Amino acid sequence: MAPRRKKIYEGKAKVLYEGPEPGTLVQYFKDDATAFNAQKRDVIEGKGVLNNRLSEYFMTGLTNIGVPNHFIKRLNMREQLIRQVEIVPLEVIVRNFAAGSIAKRLGLEEGTPLPRPIVEYSYKNDELGDPLVPEEYIIAFGWASQQDLDDIVALALRVNDFLTGVFYGVGIKLVDFKIEIGRVWDGDFMRLIVADEISPDSCRLWDVKTGQKLDKDVFRRDLGNLTDAYTEVAKRLGVLPTNTQPIKPTLIN
Amino acid sequence: MAPRRKKIYEGKAKVLYEGPEPGTLVQYFKDDATAFNAQKRDVIEGKGVLNNRLSEYFMTGLTNIGVPNHFIKRLNMREQLIRQVEIVPLEVIVRNFAAGSIAKRLGLEEGTPLPRPIVEYSYKNDELGDPLVPEEYIIAFGWASQQDLDDIVALALRVNDFLTGVFYGVGIKLVDFKIEIGRVWDGDFMRLIVADEISPDSCRLWDVKTGQKLDKDVFRRDLGNLTDAYTEVAKRLGVLPTNTQPIKPTLIN
Ligand SMILES: Nc1ncnc2c1ncn2[C@@H]1O[C@H](COP(=O)(O)OP(=O)(O)O)[C@@H](O)[C@H]1O
Ligand SMILES: Nc1ncnc2c1ncn2[C@@H]1O[C@H](COP(=O)(O)OP(=O)(O)O)[C@@H](O)[C@H]1O
Ligand SMILES: [Mg+2]
Ligand SMILES: [Mg+2]
Repeated sequence: MAPRRKKIYEGKAKVLYEGPEPGTLVQYFKDDATAFNAQKRDVIEGKGVLNNRLSEYFMTGLTNIGVPNHFIKRLNMREQLIRQVEIVPLEVIVRNFAAGSIAKRLGLEEGTPLPRPIVEYSYKNDELGDPLVPEEYIIAFGWASQQDLDDIVALALRVNDFLTGVFYGVGIKLVDFKIEIGRVWDGDFMRLIVADEISPDSCRLWDVKTGQKLDKDVFRRDLGNLTDAYTEVAKRLGVLPTNTQPIKPTLIN
Repeated sequence: MAPRRKKIYEGKAKVLYEGPEPGTLVQYFKDDATAFNAQKRDVIEGKGVLNNRLSEYFMTGLTNIGVPNHFIKRLNMREQLIRQVEIVPLEVIVRNFAAGSIAKRLGLEEGTPLPRPIVEYSYKNDELGDPLVPEEYIIAFGWASQQDLDDIVALALRVNDFLTGVFYGVGIKLVDFKIEIGRVWDGDFMRLIVADEISPDSCRLWDVKTGQKLDKDVFRRDLGNLTDAYTEVAKRLGVLPTNTQPIKPTLIN
């Protein structure tokens, strides 16, 4: 067996390894899919490869418009080099149309346009099932300050404008998405940047014409083959891995 | 000859007719192309049809993300119904990469990425050749207030994030673009909205892979067939008129 980098964290969809330089990590995309707080699980061959490519694609686009994020470069089919951040323990959710929990909670039909994009937060905690939290809680418990939240909303809305555009160009409606935000320091100066991943695992994507779901709901709701759906997204965006066979994480550098 | 609506204004690329309701206009897209303050002119068959469709497409996308604009609906191949505004006499230019006048003026190579998106203004005046003006002039001459300019910059940067995304999704680099802004009143409350058009006439668009120009520079610099270039943009975005034959403006309603 080839020597492996030190594993820092293994989550539901990704593994983090020590990076080649201080302040960097290697993010490995697994094929594991989980839903409903990991009560539903499966291995979806090729998902990790697609998400690695797609997250590279979206993060690069954000870099182009000056939205700071953790992506440095893709290393191989399943791994990318990222800047290590201190994760703000929130899932930052931006919604353009009602779907999922907001639809249930407010009794709205899925697909109802919202009066304006809504930014909401859940506290990132698997044991508690990532509960929705108002800003008040976030500030009281010190997960983020009011100033942080103002910056996070501004970032999230820019990401929304950009991603909505990307998908609009290829006939896909961006219903909602989730990002994670992390802190980095340039000396004493703290900045918030987009971290984790942007992929069909973290977005709701509906085909504009047919309404077909092209995101993780295909898995959550047993609507068909997840890899096919993600491949369709990647194809439309011109992001096509030459080889979608799962590979082992390799040593880099 | 069919009865015609009252003509309000005829410009270089479009004609404005009285609309069916007070506060509306019909915007007719001509095939005329002009450059260098109309010293170079030609008729490019089909351009008006493509720009009518493309402007509809982009304005609809902006409406989706909540960026207010004048578009109401497309009426036919060459005409769209728009909300009448009082035009702020500025061309609001957003630049992501150096090209055209900024490249010349600062001695930058075309294509040089700018340190951040730059918003600049020219005073909309054909006789003067639309001169570049600093904010100071705009405020001093009362074309817009500081508050207006702050709102205009915010609008322009949102349009930039969105359009950059749209083009990124289809392998096109948004080098720069120009919008016009107009005032509308809801009672006493004045709002600024995006007006005029968004089309390859008003953007610089370069193919990401080949660098090929897909915008009005094809005409300005005699680089080939303009309609072919605009058709390529429309095709990639899935905006394909079924018939690109020029038609006469028709009476609507
Ligand atoms: N740039 C980064 N630096 C440090 N941690 C990160 C970074 N990007 C994402 N993370 C964290 O790495 C983990 C990614 O693995 P994932 O399988 O998504 O985990 P989880 O099951 O906790 O969601 C997440 O906990 C996420 O918060
Ligand atoms: N919604 C609107 N209401 C009123 N005027 C508008 C609106 N949108 C654009 N215009 C104006 O209509 C004219 C469009 O025609 P165009 O051929 O582009 O003219 P020009 O040669 O002056 O640029 C422009 O002068 C533009 O400022
Ligand atoms: Mg995760
Ligand atoms: Mg004009």
